[in-house]
Amino acid sequence: MTEQLWADAATLDEAAAATVRLTDQIIDGLLKTPPGLEARVYEAMRYSALAPGKRLRPLLVLASSRLFGVARRSALQVAAAVEMVHAYSLIHDDLPGMDNSDLRRGRPTCHKAFDEATAILAGDGLLTMAFEVLSHPDTHGDPAVRCELVAALAAAAGAPGMVGGQMIDLIAETMTLDIGAITRLQGMKTGALIAFACEAGAILAKAPPDLRLALRRYARDLGLAFQIADDLLDVEGSAAETGKPVGADAAAGKATFVSILGVARARAQAELLINQAVAYLDLFEQRAELLRQVARFVIDRRT
Amino acid sequence: MTEQLWADAATLDEAAAATVRLTDQIIDGLLKTPPGLEARVYEAMRYSALAPGKRLRPLLVLASSRLFGVARRSALQVAAAVEMVHAYSLIHDDLPGMDNSDLRRGRPTCHKAFDEATAILAGDGLLTMAFEVLSHPDTHGDPAVRCELVAALAAAAGAPGMVGGQMIDLIAETMTLDIGAITRLQGMKTGALIAFACEAGAILAKAPPDLRLALRRYARDLGLAFQIADDLLDVEGSAAETGKPVGADAAAGKATFVSILGVARARAQAELLINQAVAYLDLFEQRAELLRQVARFVIDRRT
Repeated sequence: MTEQLWADAATLDEAAAATVRLTDQIIDGLLKTPPGLEARVYEAMRYSALAPGKRLRPLLVLASSRLFGVARRSALQVAAAVEMVHAYSLIHDDLPGMDNSDLRRGRPTCHKAFDEATAILAGDGLLTMAFEVLSHPDTHGDPAVRCELVAALAAAAGAPGMVGGQMIDLIAETMTLDIGAITRLQGMKTGALIAFACEAGAILAKAPPDLRLALRRYARDLGLAFQIADDLLDVEGSAAETGKPVGADAAAGKATFVSILGVARARAQAELLINQAVAYLDLFEQRAELLRQVARFVIDRRT
Repeated sequence: MTEQLWADAATLDEAAAATVRLTDQIIDGLLKTPPGLEARVYEAMRYSALAPGKRLRPLLVLASSRLFGVARRSALQVAAAVEMVHAYSLIHDDLPGMDNSDLRRGRPTCHKAFDEATAILAGDGLLTMAFEVLSHPDTHGDPAVRCELVAALAAAAGAPGMVGGQMIDLIAETMTLDIGAITRLQGMKTGALIAFACEAGAILAKAPPDLRLALRRYARDLGLAFQIADDLLDVEGSAAETGKPVGADAAAGKATFVSILGVARARAQAELLINQAVAYLDLFEQRAELLRQVARFVIDRRT
C-alpha cells in the first residue's frame, strides 16, 4: 500500500507524507532497542531520529533516486542514513557546550529529555550507525557504490563539511563575517549534507558526470536558499510555528544573511537562488517535477 | 628507512616505536590543517589524535596484518582509522557532561586545551574521518573489503559496541553491577575496538573463517585482560606514570574487576586470560610472535 502511494505520489504533500512514513519505518527497524542496560542510548537515538519533522533530506534522496529509477529499498537506506546524520548534528548542536538549546522541533532537546552524557552518546551512535547502514548490502548490491556513499557522506558530514561549518559558526559569534564568509559557512554547515542527499540518487544509479553535476548545482543553490529562508523564519516566524525561540540568532549576535542584507533583499536573493536551482533541472525534463516542487517549498515554508 | 625498520622489527619495543612513528605520520598526512576558520577544529583533532600514546590499537592492526603479509599502506590506513576512533572516544569521554576529566595522557584534555564546543566537534570530526579513510581506495583495492571494514568498525564503535558500553558504564555509577555485567560492559566499551584492530589484518587479507575466529578469540581475552590491568593501574599506579589521577574509578563509586575480585584475584584472572589469548595464536606458529609479546606487555605495563 505504501509502495503504491510512493510510486503514485503526484503532489509534493503526498510525496512528503510518504517520505516521513517510509523513512521512519526504516529507521524504526534499524534502531530496535535491545534488552540490556544500553537500551537507554537507543531510546535517546530513537527520540531524536524519529522526532516529528519534515524529513527534507530523505525527501531529496528519494526524489533524486526516482529520477533514475533506483530501487526503493536502496533509496530508503540512504534516506535513513542521512536523517540519522541530521539528527545527530541537531543533538550535538543543542548541547549545553554548544548552542545550549532546550527546545527543538517543539519538544525538549535530547539532553533535556534524557541527560547530557546520554545525548552525547546518542549523537555518536547515530553518526556511527549511518555508516553501518550505508555499508550494508541492503543499500546496494555493488560494494563500490556503497564505498562511494560512505566517502561522500563522510566528506559532507565531517570537518570538510558540516563539522567544519559548525566550527566556523561558533567562531562567528565572536567576530563579524562578511557575506562571502557566511555563504561558505552555510555551504559547509547545511549545504554539504543537502548536496549529499541530492547527489545520492545519482550515486546509487551510477549516473554519468553531467547529471551528477546538475544535481550538485541544484543542491548548492537550494541549500543556500534553504538557509536564507531559515534566517527569515528566525526573524519573522512564530515560536509556535518553528518550534524554537524566535530571534535566537540575533540574540546570539550572529551575522546572518538577513542581518547583512535586510529582509527584502534576503528574500529576493532566496527567490533568485531557487530559480537558478530549478534551471539546473531542465535536463531531467518532467522527471524532476518533484525536485522543482521541493525547491518552491523550501522558500515558501512557514516552519 | 622506516620501511626497513618496521619490516625488520624483531622486538616489541622496536615494533611499538615503529608503529607510533608510522601511524602518526599517516594521521598527520590525513589531518592537514586547512587555511579557513575551520582550522581550529583540525588543530583540536590533531592535538588529540597525535597526542603521545602507546598506539596499542594500531600496533594490533599492524601485527595482525603482518600475519597475512598485508600491504603496509593498507594496514596503516586502518591503523590510522582505528586510532582516530580511539582518540574521538577519549575526547568525548573526558567532556564535562561525561567523565569531566582535566588530564589525559599527562596533558590537558581536549576541552581544556581548546573549549567544550571545539572538543565535541573534534570528536565528531575524527569519528567521521575514520570512515572516510576506510572507504578510500588507498585502504584496499577491493571495495568489498573496504565496505567490510566500514561495517566492522561501525559495529565496534557504535551503540552495539563502544557507545553502548559507555552508556552502561555511566549507568553503572548509580547501581552495582556483578562480574558478568562488568565483563559485558568492558567487552563493549574497550573490547570491541580492540577486537576490530585484531581482526583487521584478516579482513584486509580475506583470511578464512577459522583464522578470523582465532584472532577474535585472542582479542576478546586480550581486551578483558587489558581492562583488568587498567583497573589495577588505577589502584596501584602513580599519576606520574599513568598520566591521570589515581583512584579515579573508586572515587566515582564504580564497581571494577579489582573492587569486586580484589587485587590478587584480579591479577590472577588477567594472567589466565593472557595465557588463553596466547593459546589461540598457536595456529599461526612463529608468525604470531609479535601478538604474543603484545599480550604479555598488556598486563606487564606500568602505564
